[in-house]
Amino acid sequence: MNDVANEQLLQRVENFLTNSSDEERHLLSTIINGFSEKQNGTYTTYLAALTQIKTRFLENGDYEVILPIQPLIENPLKIVHGGMTATLLDTAMGSLVNQSISSDLAAVTTEMNVHYIKPGVGSHLRCVASILNKGRQLCVTEAKVYDEKEKLIAMGTGTFFIMKRPKK
Amino acid sequence: MNDVANEQLLQRVENFLTNSSDEERHLLSTIINGFSEKQNGTYTTYLAALTQIKTRFLENGDYEVILPIQPLIENPLKIVHGGMTATLLDTAMGSLVNQSISSDLAAVTTEMNVHYIKPGVGSHLRCVASILNKGRQLCVTEAKVYDEKEKLIAMGTGTFFIMKRPKK
Amino acid sequence: MNDVANEQLLQRVENFLTNSSDEERHLLSTIINGFSEKQNGTYTTYLAALTQIKTRFLENGDYEVILPIQPLIENPLKIVHGGMTATLLDTAMGSLVNQSISSDLAAVTTEMNVHYIKPGVGSHLRCVASILNKGRQLCVTEAKVYDEKEKLIAMGTGTFFIMKRPKK
Amino acid sequence: MNDVANEQLLQRVENFLTNSSDEERHLLSTIINGFSEKQNGTYTTYLAALTQIKTRFLENGDYEVILPIQPLIENPLKIVHGGMTATLLDTAMGSLVNQSISSDLAAVTTEMNVHYIKPGVGSHLRCVASILNKGRQLCVTEAKVYDEKEKLIAMGTGTFFIMKRPKK
Repeated sequence: MNDVANEQLLQRVENFLTNSSDEERHLLSTIINGFSEKQNGTYTTYLAALTQIKTRFLENGDYEVILPIQPLIENPLKIVHGGMTATLLDTAMGSLVNQSISSDLAAVTTEMNVHYIKPGVGSHLRCVASILNKGRQLCVTEAKVYDEKEKLIAMGTGTFFIMKRPKK
Repeated sequence: MNDVANEQLLQRVENFLTNSSDEERHLLSTIINGFSEKQNGTYTTYLAALTQIKTRFLENGDYEVILPIQPLIENPLKIVHGGMTATLLDTAMGSLVNQSISSDLAAVTTEMNVHYIKPGVGSHLRCVASILNKGRQLCVTEAKVYDEKEKLIAMGTGTFFIMKRPKK
Repeated sequence: MNDVANEQLLQRVENFLTNSSDEERHLLSTIINGFSEKQNGTYTTYLAALTQIKTRFLENGDYEVILPIQPLIENPLKIVHGGMTATLLDTAMGSLVNQSISSDLAAVTTEMNVHYIKPGVGSHLRCVASILNKGRQLCVTEAKVYDEKEKLIAMGTGTFFIMKRPKK
Repeated sequence: MNDVANEQLLQRVENFLTNSSDEERHLLSTIINGFSEKQNGTYTTYLAALTQIKTRFLENGDYEVILPIQPLIENPLKIVHGGMTATLLDTAMGSLVNQSISSDLAAVTTEMNVHYIKPGVGSHLRCVASILNKGRQLCVTEAKVYDEKEKLIAMGTGTFFIMKRPKK
């Protein structure tokens, strides 16, 4: 039965491609890449897979997330959608907090504030998050977003609530 | 040459589908639907097409955006990613402001604040945005996000800067 | 010994009054009134006494704080200092939360966001606070500030953390 | 006629002092000092005079404001009132912006976000503000508040709108 579903889906993809633009083909290619990378464990969420973020700890303990700019994340003005910049900030701050606490705990965002400073354009956005204070139950963080020329384009702060990780 | 590219891409889609889960096929199906709807003008951005948002004005002048919940927008805890809730809020507030100003003007987010109140789960999230004050250059808005049971799950405020729309 | 200190202080007050303006005398008069009212229990803090706020619950459960406008709380542009508007918001939201929890608990502000919409001028500012969500440990509130003509001049949101009240 | 008013006011001050506590006398003394310093130009607002803030530019261009802790600015829990911490942040950020623009311009706060991290206790609070971005019409700033032991107790960000200074 899956084979049939696959065949139908493949047919729809083929139809879509027939009238597709270069941009659309490029996007679909990125999406298929991302999904394959999620299958092999490179990404834990579809959102990360689609947006192709790259993450790492910096030497000073800060956490860096790089977000390639692609049409998928742009608004009608052809700049990065403010919501995607917020997603980048939340991802960087939240990942940092969750990696700084015991594995039986989970941190969830309770509040986030974002200042948009310059339009998000160019090849990528780079976000660097750091912890301002880690309490027993609340953690306050800040993060800055730079463009490919290292110009500050956004700044955010967040409050995270730390709780027992829900049992699976 | 496009034909070849299409053929290669189609081959990669086929390979991906061979090992795909129901969830992955469902997602790809949604994406292809969204892209087709963008081609025929239903959506103006890929992000809106992928997330399948539905928008409308309410009778009192508020603006509503409905976001179906799907694995694409979930975080590793299987609740809506905070960044996607922020995207929903920014989309609702920004769309409302942009539709309330002269067509030669454009409004960009300068600041957004989000309070996360309950986990985003269920069939969809519904966001309702309203304008608190519209000045000549700054517009302040608020928006609330409800789940399928009409429980408040997030609240946001935003400041928008109104400027001459860039010439194309 | 207190008598002496009193006498010296009274002498300094007298010297100050000799060169004082109407505004300064009016201010000192307000301050002495406020301090006396604090002595007889009308106010619990000097700040409330000096700023002469009046508080009450509204019928719908919201909480109202009225702040008379006087030179004491103005900035160099002769409008209410943004910090005093923030104080009004924090007082209204915090008082509401603290009165909605058990007497062995205390709520402290963990985060506040303020939008300044119009200049604070006229006879007074009126702030109305309401609770958006009350969880076991976090409470999210919003509040709006109106001028004497009931125009919205500021809007704020706050997150409060609820903890065991420290033993005296 | 002013003499009579002065005499009556002085009588009320005397009555107040008769039943006053050490704390109350100390407060009144601070207030009279502050008002005198405002008369001789040390302070431009009553609020600054009462709270006895000290301001200066640091070598790197940041702006520092020191706020002595006194009962006047405490909440019922005997820690600095969150509104006064917000006032400190707004004063530091706003003063910095206003001193960084042409004298025919004025900057007003359009939005401020405050994270409260630790209770404000000890001898004083020290706030350091810096400019994140200065545009033609909007300026984004951040500021941190430390206690006497240089522990971070609060953090804030602000957006300022720059306009022609109103003619007197």
